[in-house]
Amino acid sequence: MAFTFNQDRELDIITIGRACIDLNANEYNRPMEETMTFTKYVGGSPANIAIGSSKLGLKAGFIGKIPKDQHGRFIQRYMNEKGVDTSNMVVDTDGRRAGLAFTEILSPSECSILMYRENVADLYLEPSEVNEDYIKKAKILLVSGTALALSPSREAVIKAISLAKKHDVKVIFELDYRPYTWHSQEETSIYYSLVAELSDVVIGTRDEYDVMENLASPGNNDETMKYLFAHGAELVVIKHGVAGSYAYEPNGTVHHGQAYKTNVLKTFGAGDSYASAFLYAIISGKDYETALKYGSASASIVVSKHSSSEAMPTVQEIEQFIRDRS
Amino acid sequence: MAFTFNQDRELDIITIGRACIDLNANEYNRPMEETMTFTKYVGGSPANIAIGSSKLGLKAGFIGKIPKDQHGRFIQRYMNEKGVDTSNMVVDTDGRRAGLAFTEILSPSECSILMYRENVADLYLEPSEVNEDYIKKAKILLVSGTALALSPSREAVIKAISLAKKHDVKVIFELDYRPYTWHSQEETSIYYSLVAELSDVVIGTRDEYDVMENLASPGNNDETMKYLFAHGAELVVIKHGVAGSYAYEPNGTVHHGQAYKTNVLKTFGAGDSYASAFLYAIISGKDYETALKYGSASASIVVSKHSSSEAMPTVQEIEQFIRDRS
Amino acid sequence: MAFTFNQDRELDIITIGRACIDLNANEYNRPMEETMTFTKYVGGSPANIAIGSSKLGLKAGFIGKIPKDQHGRFIQRYMNEKGVDTSNMVVDTDGRRAGLAFTEILSPSECSILMYRENVADLYLEPSEVNEDYIKKAKILLVSGTALALSPSREAVIKAISLAKKHDVKVIFELDYRPYTWHSQEETSIYYSLVAELSDVVIGTRDEYDVMENLASPGNNDETMKYLFAHGAELVVIKHGVAGSYAYEPNGTVHHGQAYKTNVLKTFGAGDSYASAFLYAIISGKDYETALKYGSASASIVVSKHSSSEAMPTVQEIEQFIRDRS
Amino acid sequence: MAFTFNQDRELDIITIGRACIDLNANEYNRPMEETMTFTKYVGGSPANIAIGSSKLGLKAGFIGKIPKDQHGRFIQRYMNEKGVDTSNMVVDTDGRRAGLAFTEILSPSECSILMYRENVADLYLEPSEVNEDYIKKAKILLVSGTALALSPSREAVIKAISLAKKHDVKVIFELDYRPYTWHSQEETSIYYSLVAELSDVVIGTRDEYDVMENLASPGNNDETMKYLFAHGAELVVIKHGVAGSYAYEPNGTVHHGQAYKTNVLKTFGAGDSYASAFLYAIISGKDYETALKYGSASASIVVSKHSSSEAMPTVQEIEQFIRDRS
Repeated sequence: MAFTFNQDRELDIITIGRACIDLNANEYNRPMEETMTFTKYVGGSPANIAIGSSKLGLKAGFIGKIPKDQHGRFIQRYMNEKGVDTSNMVVDTDGRRAGLAFTEILSPSECSILMYRENVADLYLEPSEVNEDYIKKAKILLVSGTALALSPSREAVIKAISLAKKHDVKVIFELDYRPYTWHSQEETSIYYSLVAELSDVVIGTRDEYDVMENLASPGNNDETMKYLFAHGAELVVIKHGVAGSYAYEPNGTVHHGQAYKTNVLKTFGAGDSYASAFLYAIISGKDYETALKYGSASASIVVSKHSSSEAMPTVQEIEQFIRDRS
Repeated sequence: MAFTFNQDRELDIITIGRACIDLNANEYNRPMEETMTFTKYVGGSPANIAIGSSKLGLKAGFIGKIPKDQHGRFIQRYMNEKGVDTSNMVVDTDGRRAGLAFTEILSPSECSILMYRENVADLYLEPSEVNEDYIKKAKILLVSGTALALSPSREAVIKAISLAKKHDVKVIFELDYRPYTWHSQEETSIYYSLVAELSDVVIGTRDEYDVMENLASPGNNDETMKYLFAHGAELVVIKHGVAGSYAYEPNGTVHHGQAYKTNVLKTFGAGDSYASAFLYAIISGKDYETALKYGSASASIVVSKHSSSEAMPTVQEIEQFIRDRS
Repeated sequence: MAFTFNQDRELDIITIGRACIDLNANEYNRPMEETMTFTKYVGGSPANIAIGSSKLGLKAGFIGKIPKDQHGRFIQRYMNEKGVDTSNMVVDTDGRRAGLAFTEILSPSECSILMYRENVADLYLEPSEVNEDYIKKAKILLVSGTALALSPSREAVIKAISLAKKHDVKVIFELDYRPYTWHSQEETSIYYSLVAELSDVVIGTRDEYDVMENLASPGNNDETMKYLFAHGAELVVIKHGVAGSYAYEPNGTVHHGQAYKTNVLKTFGAGDSYASAFLYAIISGKDYETALKYGSASASIVVSKHSSSEAMPTVQEIEQFIRDRS
Repeated sequence: MAFTFNQDRELDIITIGRACIDLNANEYNRPMEETMTFTKYVGGSPANIAIGSSKLGLKAGFIGKIPKDQHGRFIQRYMNEKGVDTSNMVVDTDGRRAGLAFTEILSPSECSILMYRENVADLYLEPSEVNEDYIKKAKILLVSGTALALSPSREAVIKAISLAKKHDVKVIFELDYRPYTWHSQEETSIYYSLVAELSDVVIGTRDEYDVMENLASPGNNDETMKYLFAHGAELVVIKHGVAGSYAYEPNGTVHHGQAYKTNVLKTFGAGDSYASAFLYAIISGKDYETALKYGSASASIVVSKHSSSEAMPTVQEIEQFIRDRS
């Protein structure tokens, strides 16, 4: 089956949540203590997905709060240059900063992030800064789980979902779970469940669904499906790392997409590039099998490169990559 | 029509939210500056409703957090004495206090409350302190809007609702709006809508529904009904003060209950006594017309007395009161 | 020796710090859970000392922040009626409340206080609200230790001391230690030392000096004297409960005052009434021996009565009390 | 005159306060939005002074709190490598981060810093983490004004000063004023005055003394001297930018040191390098005239280079620089 949505909209996708700064180690395969220089990129899952979608040719918009400083201006300028509509970006006026992610690449499989997330601008998006007229211009609204971690961003996102449902905008929930900021896994579970029950499409790793279900040990996909389809989901995507990803439909159909092997530089950015390409495919009317391939290919391309946002592939790159592996 | 629910449950009603201390002016009809002595009562809407319900013969339980101090012990002891099951009351261990309400009665129609709500124990109920086995023992779960004002109480209540729905416990939402603690009316509106959409019965004043709908000027009941019945409500009660109250059913039936005239001492406690008696009536299988009468009568009795909790009437008092005014 | 100070000043004493509400159990010799009514009084050590001083005939002023509510208006009105100059009282505009002290009198020797001190107005006195022209009108400035517990009250008090020293106003430090609000005894010790080193007179119980010196076990008065006189103190008063109190002079002279036996109702208010009468005596030019007697007599009178502020004695009562026990 | 101090100590200097991370723009003479890569250095005034002192041959120690992360480990390792004793560095265990300073060099005279100072580890140094046995090993203790900006670092520094005075360690107060973190200039003024009154040497720019004195318009050095010498200062250094710096003695002697012209890259690091070299000179027994020259030369060398810490000069470089300009 293919995904259906309101075709008659100006924007293909609006993402809501954080736009931050990644500071990627230029000297890698070593502890960050030994990295002396860093390159700056735009980061943050919903910003990356907007950038990735735009690069794939979608009309993408972004709702989020950025600082009134050099990092904020860089974020806005960069996203604009990549074609993202930033008309609904809000500039913080209380001296808050952009979130930072210093990346450490000890080895291709041992990556970690040193986060600066104290009092960051993105978590201070207010409900009053979410614009009904803007939301209703979109085919789909992509919500990032991290934006639910703290008030008032949490309420801004709940309001955006409520407006999306009112105006027949499909709600995509990218679980995007980051333990920092959340008080407890139980708190995360409460909001993830609440939002998942309201969403049309849910995308995440198996680990992230375990957090949503507040499980101590790994859950199984059948239980997750029973739960989400009972609340009206149309499509559920669960990613299992090297074992590939699955797309579930309410009618019981399951699609499996394999993961592509690649020359991994680091693991960051895989999820955002996956989501961008998967959503591009379903918005373009491709079937779910193809969408799974696009997602996997896009993720494989990004993990072989230095950045998350700057490395987002074009349609041609994705299709070439898939052809090369067929 | 009559209200239907799972009959086979040990407890008629569980209320969740705050149990506090009322300090009622002994010298009244004057500014509080001139009041020199105060009498202590248990207060807080969900505590009052549990007490009121118990006094009417229902088996009532209470979920909430009380301080580890003399006020906390008084609350627990008093509610126990009134027959409320306090087995799921939680004692705070972080030095927080009970909320306080000093009442000022300038005249029967000019009452105000001086609140102490900073860092109060009740708002620190944790989701992990809400017990699934307890929730599923109840016919109905009554949720107080004020308990949604702050984390982690907010999440504890959302969890309780989710458990209630899982176990076929009817969810009653008493809007109980108090502006303090909330950051903005828009924030209140977001959570009130979220919870109202999940509730089987919603009870409040017209003013409170206006807050739920984030309206700047008074809304109308028809719009409210359209909204709530679209989300699955079974019964909506809207109170209009001296103009009486209305119970709406999804099939379009509207019941009107008149307000009884009485010798008003103060306005406090009207809502809690209304809810107790209304719920008593519907749980006892009485029709909605009768339930509206019970609610109004109970409210009239309480506003003519000094306290809210201690003054909660018995069934005999309510029925006598109604007979006297027929 | 007698205490010397600048005679040519309009006000005898200004106290700085908290003015709160005491809610004293009307039913006592029982746990507070069983107390049903409370009587309201003005409380808080520096407010009590201002009231006590005024009642003794001194011209007293008070610097502190009160809430913009009924309790705040009661405090201001009451202090005014007792003759205290409240022209430099500041009204909070951020919705903060008055501190509350519910007293529990289990028995005359087992008294405890249930405090409400979260976000109270008095601790939000700003340095900019301390007026140089006012400070310089006084003979002495009495500083309460509790006002050092939190910013910005802490800085307001440090500024007041600095202005007092600039204008030759004697600084009296009443240690008035209350563990709540302080983060640690070490933090208390740091500020108590800092202020004691700047003070002309220090008054406290032996326990309070132990906190100032951050001692784990009781210290001795000789060490305390060595320390304080090295920093310029003129007089140090140490209270030892039933063993009486001592006044130390830098020249080595020690005065001992006995404690008077009395019919104790509760222990509250002893320190404030002691300080009022002791300071009254030294400001009136009486010798230290006499001042110690006045302090003890005043304390004995207050502990036999229900309140702290309202029970403050007159000079006649104190002198009669002393005569009766001679 | 020359500066006198207790010669018989293991460490020449201990600095107390922050050790942070500088991220210096690699591409400069442009807005930071256009800078894409940054080089990482240790930063923070007291850390820089410890590093600078050590490089000049002094035995230097550092007291401060660093994060338990890659940045913290880098700071400790780097300072160790530069010869600074880090035995009394404390590692934060509450997940706090290092402060960050992204430098923007628009032009040599238009430099600005984008600070990350939310909840940083250095401001959480506890009084209990300041070690009496360590303090008493030093000839001088250098206190950075910024460490007074917030509790508990504020109290840790006050405790360190108190211990220094107890053990005859000279206290040097480097005003090091940074407006962020402070609530108001009046608050800064209160703590700066308190600490300056306790210090043996005070060093700062004229602007910083204006903050200390809470002046709205520029103050004059004579008034500042009158104030500080009345409280026991031995030496006061006031820097006037290109107009050079002045060292004042209590006996009225004034020494003037000129500023050296240099090829300025950026203005950062001037104060720290000045302090390091000035203190090196007076600890080495050089006269004040010479110390002023050393300070100015060191500052001129650092502002011509990319970093603050890494660029700290050796004695040979300073002396060569002075000879070249004589």
